[in-house]
Amino acid sequence: MRIAIVGSGALGLYYGALLQRAGNELRFLLRRDLDAIARRGLTVTSPNGDFHLDRVQGFARTAEMGEVDLVVVGLKTFDNLHLVELCRPLMAGGAAVLTLQNGLGNEELLAEAFGPERVLGGVAFLGANRGEPGSVHHLGKGHIRLGEAKGGLTPRARELAALFAAAGVPCEPVADLARARWEKLVWNIPFNGLCALTLRTTDRLLAHAPTRAEVVALMHEVIAGANAQGFAEPLDRDRCVAEMMEQTVGLGVYKPSTMIDRLEGRQLELGSIFGVPVEKAAARGVDMVRVRLLWALLGLPEAAPVRA
Amino acid sequence: MRIAIVGSGALGLYYGALLQRAGNELRFLLRRDLDAIARRGLTVTSPNGDFHLDRVQGFARTAEMGEVDLVVVGLKTFDNLHLVELCRPLMAGGAAVLTLQNGLGNEELLAEAFGPERVLGGVAFLGANRGEPGSVHHLGKGHIRLGEAKGGLTPRARELAALFAAAGVPCEPVADLARARWEKLVWNIPFNGLCALTLRTTDRLLAHAPTRAEVVALMHEVIAGANAQGFAEPLDRDRCVAEMMEQTVGLGVYKPSTMIDRLEGRQLELGSIFGVPVEKAAARGVDMVRVRLLWALLGLPEAAPVRA
Repeated sequence: MRIAIVGSGALGLYYGALLQRAGNELRFLLRRDLDAIARRGLTVTSPNGDFHLDRVQGFARTAEMGEVDLVVVGLKTFDNLHLVELCRPLMAGGAAVLTLQNGLGNEELLAEAFGPERVLGGVAFLGANRGEPGSVHHLGKGHIRLGEAKGGLTPRARELAALFAAAGVPCEPVADLARARWEKLVWNIPFNGLCALTLRTTDRLLAHAPTRAEVVALMHEVIAGANAQGFAEPLDRDRCVAEMMEQTVGLGVYKPSTMIDRLEGRQLELGSIFGVPVEKAAARGVDMVRVRLLWALLGLPEAAPVRA
Repeated sequence: MRIAIVGSGALGLYYGALLQRAGNELRFLLRRDLDAIARRGLTVTSPNGDFHLDRVQGFARTAEMGEVDLVVVGLKTFDNLHLVELCRPLMAGGAAVLTLQNGLGNEELLAEAFGPERVLGGVAFLGANRGEPGSVHHLGKGHIRLGEAKGGLTPRARELAALFAAAGVPCEPVADLARARWEKLVWNIPFNGLCALTLRTTDRLLAHAPTRAEVVALMHEVIAGANAQGFAEPLDRDRCVAEMMEQTVGLGVYKPSTMIDRLEGRQLELGSIFGVPVEKAAARGVDMVRVRLLWALLGLPEAAPVRA
């Protein structure tokens, strides 16, 4: 399959490399890594085994990438203003587009531009970061849950899941993509939000009983917002919270991506992880007050440290 | 009048110095400043005029301070575990006690130990900090609103207000001390809380529209918690918010005390400013969810900065 990767951060590079190794024809839209990958190819380090791809097709513009069968989007969502424009040349043929971006609102942008029947989305559970140009480090996990923007378990969704599975990424096709996205937010909103705001790792939040209680309160808010969306199968609140708390204990001393972004002075993915969920919940009558507070405070411009 | 100052931080030293200058007999319970004040007296710098007191009675223990007519408490509220024990020797005679501490719960502690009829409280609006040992810097303002723990506008409250006024501190006796304390919290909770948590000054919170909206939402929560207490004259929500926002603009680049405490690595007054109000509101059926979240996060143990 001819696959374009748009947004070649850690996620795009890692999944693209696996898909190419599995025999697909990959074309990467690159920025930082363009020269390095043209010269030396792409190196992946992983607990599952390191590997190197000698010949990798990298491009500086999507207009040069030609026709593909599938566009995989890994763009950071604060760049979503350019998402449609970036994808348009690749969508001129009959390609489908799969966005693996964080949070909510991404399929909607693509569906509006290209028609919902051409859009799929996926929720990626992945620990990975970029190394020096031309290399990406897979830290662990990497499973994906993907589905149609329109909903329903289609043959296409099953085929794409099989494509990732064949490349070595556990992948589950889901009938209700929106539900899968909200379910991930039940974790991301409290932990990405509070860790980024307080610059404490997940274990430190859980070790402080009042903050642990606020994590649970935030999960309850998000689950209420989620279930107001009218899923065929609502999230089971107590089971969902129990599972996520247990998983988090298992992570040990963990820094969610938004915390790392803030520590490294990068822009934060606030709209898709906090803003759109707050608005979608509000549209269904659920005021996620704690989430709105986090969203506001994380949006404060960074500044030089203040002295006493 | 014979007056004991218990808790000689900036507030205790400043008001004590003014009361002594006005002809009262002051006795200060001192820790850090004990030796310096014994040797060199007490220096006050102030936009209203600097002055120096040559002879100041300082003590290391309240048991040595003798009988007084009035005990003025300026102790930081995180030391309230020792409040009653500190005051007890001074209350052996017929003294009244006036607590000018921050937040809620202080009169209750004293009233339980010494009887409510001996307790008054006041809300101090003061910018002051300690300089080198033996000196205190008054930055501006300094008015007090004081009243009986039991409520009601008594002759004693009027006399104490006159005492402070004669010393140069504008002082208003109020019939409803609890209302005055809650009213101050309408400012302290959002600004002390958010500035301490985000390490941004008040002007920066107001310049960011979503955070400004959260400041207002926090004020609404506190006003709801306040009015649930059943004051004879409830706080007028919109007028209260408008006044406080206007005052805050007037403060310019301002660091509330809790922010300064955190920047200087001191303990924070979380119980009296956040915890007791949350509990008093909850006891009347008002869940101040944003305040509870701030209270939790500000209570996270400080730690070495985390790296990306």
